[in-house]
Amino acid sequence: MNLVTLTTDFGVQSMYAAAMKGALFTVNPNVLVIDLSHAIPPQNLVYTNYFLHATIPYYPKSTLHVVVVDPGVGSERRILFVDMGDYQLLVPDNGCWTSLLEHGVKPARVIQVTETKYFRDRISNTFHGRDIFAPVAGHLSAGVDPQLLGEQVHDWIELALPHAVCTDQELRGEVIFVDDFGNLLTNIPADPFLEWHDKPLETTIGTTTIEKRVSHYADAAFGEPAVLVSSMNRVEIGVNQGNAAKQLHADVGTPVQIKRR
Amino acid sequence: MNLVTLTTDFGVQSMYAAAMKGALFTVNPNVLVIDLSHAIPPQNLVYTNYFLHATIPYYPKSTLHVVVVDPGVGSERRILFVDMGDYQLLVPDNGCWTSLLEHGVKPARVIQVTETKYFRDRISNTFHGRDIFAPVAGHLSAGVDPQLLGEQVHDWIELALPHAVCTDQELRGEVIFVDDFGNLLTNIPADPFLEWHDKPLETTIGTTTIEKRVSHYADAAFGEPAVLVSSMNRVEIGVNQGNAAKQLHADVGTPVQIKRR
Amino acid sequence: MNLVTLTTDFGVQSMYAAAMKGALFTVNPNVLVIDLSHAIPPQNLVYTNYFLHATIPYYPKSTLHVVVVDPGVGSERRILFVDMGDYQLLVPDNGCWTSLLEHGVKPARVIQVTETKYFRDRISNTFHGRDIFAPVAGHLSAGVDPQLLGEQVHDWIELALPHAVCTDQELRGEVIFVDDFGNLLTNIPADPFLEWHDKPLETTIGTTTIEKRVSHYADAAFGEPAVLVSSMNRVEIGVNQGNAAKQLHADVGTPVQIKRR
Repeated sequence: MNLVTLTTDFGVQSMYAAAMKGALFTVNPNVLVIDLSHAIPPQNLVYTNYFLHATIPYYPKSTLHVVVVDPGVGSERRILFVDMGDYQLLVPDNGCWTSLLEHGVKPARVIQVTETKYFRDRISNTFHGRDIFAPVAGHLSAGVDPQLLGEQVHDWIELALPHAVCTDQELRGEVIFVDDFGNLLTNIPADPFLEWHDKPLETTIGTTTIEKRVSHYADAAFGEPAVLVSSMNRVEIGVNQGNAAKQLHADVGTPVQIKRR
Repeated sequence: MNLVTLTTDFGVQSMYAAAMKGALFTVNPNVLVIDLSHAIPPQNLVYTNYFLHATIPYYPKSTLHVVVVDPGVGSERRILFVDMGDYQLLVPDNGCWTSLLEHGVKPARVIQVTETKYFRDRISNTFHGRDIFAPVAGHLSAGVDPQLLGEQVHDWIELALPHAVCTDQELRGEVIFVDDFGNLLTNIPADPFLEWHDKPLETTIGTTTIEKRVSHYADAAFGEPAVLVSSMNRVEIGVNQGNAAKQLHADVGTPVQIKRR
Repeated sequence: MNLVTLTTDFGVQSMYAAAMKGALFTVNPNVLVIDLSHAIPPQNLVYTNYFLHATIPYYPKSTLHVVVVDPGVGSERRILFVDMGDYQLLVPDNGCWTSLLEHGVKPARVIQVTETKYFRDRISNTFHGRDIFAPVAGHLSAGVDPQLLGEQVHDWIELALPHAVCTDQELRGEVIFVDDFGNLLTNIPADPFLEWHDKPLETTIGTTTIEKRVSHYADAAFGEPAVLVSSMNRVEIGVNQGNAAKQLHADVGTPVQIKRR
């Protein structure tokens, strides 16, 4: 556990991210810290969840992933150490890691972090990233046994996430993430969509209907919207060298329907 | 001195930040470089000052902190190496580190950096970050004795920063920093505010008056402004899961007054 | 080749940048990864080219620079490993590295990357950064012989970039880059401009004419536009503590003409 990643909503290169990293190095100067992102939209747990789902699986085994998107900071909300077997999480108990439990995955162990001797001496009420998460991550990455952090727990908060509905006639879901290119990532799985690869389809997103299906962006004409399989193996709507979100006036939550014609 | 941090106004992931880092690694490939921020608002020395004050104290001892917010680049302004005892600074002599001298702290030694043999061979007039600060930081982190950089000096520029006025009847200050959440950090110290924990208070910021006092954001109703103690141990005004700066039309310099009712 | 830099248009701290880094560490946990930038404007090859030209030359020898600005991802566009002698590149074959070949520089060797055993097992059509570039960079930095990646090639795409025209009477070029301060970097070389250091000049940019020439920003009055030599050794137009791009309504492509009066 020498690689530690940080994911927060503190703002890109904000003073909070910088202070948190300092507190981590102060406990363990030999840790390798990777900023996954400090650009999570403030307090957005659903965004955090999809962000973690798209990134954590690609990291080496035994990486410790620290997440501080924490609207409940200072309240009674719990802080959890989660041993997922292949990797570890240090998260507020607010559901931000829900999708990592997809397909019946179960954590090996979940511990409520309470042992204050691994915290900073003085704990503010508004910045547990610096005062609790960072030093605890420092101690964990330096080899402290997670059992010393607190008691094991068997329940935790999970987010209620929208699920796609797939039938023989249509696939119905919604946009769950907009990337920095403006590509619209949906919750519709790729498999049923790919099964229809030889059938004419109609994809409706908001008020737009799209017939173009491509395997990659450059297969569409410049500026043309098209439906494809995302790098997350779900259905995506993109515009070749354009911004689909702006062009189609779509955002997280916009319904998407794919029908056989 | 193997850990070096960078704080600049070059822009997040700008080519200047990237070039500067390259120049640093070229001198010392074994240095550990941490970007505190390249998102300092252009030429904003006051912002830089508070940013450094909120971050540097949390870093390990013996870290070298390099700051390039440098509107005077190419002019006669001096470049200073500051030995603060616990840590080191490499800064333009423009006052950007003023608050690190709070409470009568004195630097152990200040050296004006003039020895060109630690600079790049060719020095531009607009980019001393790459041509002077980076190579000097590389040499320092590789063990070069700071005495070799130039002569000791005993004066330097300090910023005139606004101070809060605290009496038995009121605390009067102003907003000195707005974080990425829109929280309003003031220069009013926490201690007199906390002494009034059992008294009804009225906080006026701009044209808004706030009575709500909380220990953490989630203690206020969703979207409700409230007064609390910041993680910097000063008075802060925030909105639970909202943006206080936008909601209260406040910014750096907005006066804040806390009165007993 | 233990230092690897990343330059992409994925967005600052986007999930794609984070996933790509994970895929790299998974192959080689001992690599030192530096983000040059993930803030390249989407699909902008010309911007990428100047960005690389302003940064790569300052990095240590034997650094591997990975560039994923790749509008052709998933199509037949080739992926190239370029051995430049002093450093290495892993780039899509779209011309994004053209200016590194200035002044007749020739790569020592260019290899088309085709050997799938250095790729991830499953290759998406939209994210070769994670599925091809990252693992190939991981293997290269871990010591894999570039010859094993594929066959040598002797042709590649180069961008058609605008050149300045310099005569005894005038220097004529255009803005090629706007930095985060709003400074306007042109393609006019510094040398002929400096030769006229004792002659009165008139610089026209868009509809503005500027007579002020300075060696550094602070030499101009506050808010005054002036012409100077950039840190890239070309002519630059800046505003002391201001934003020249906004103030002069100029952008990439705006013509610039310098005439002797």
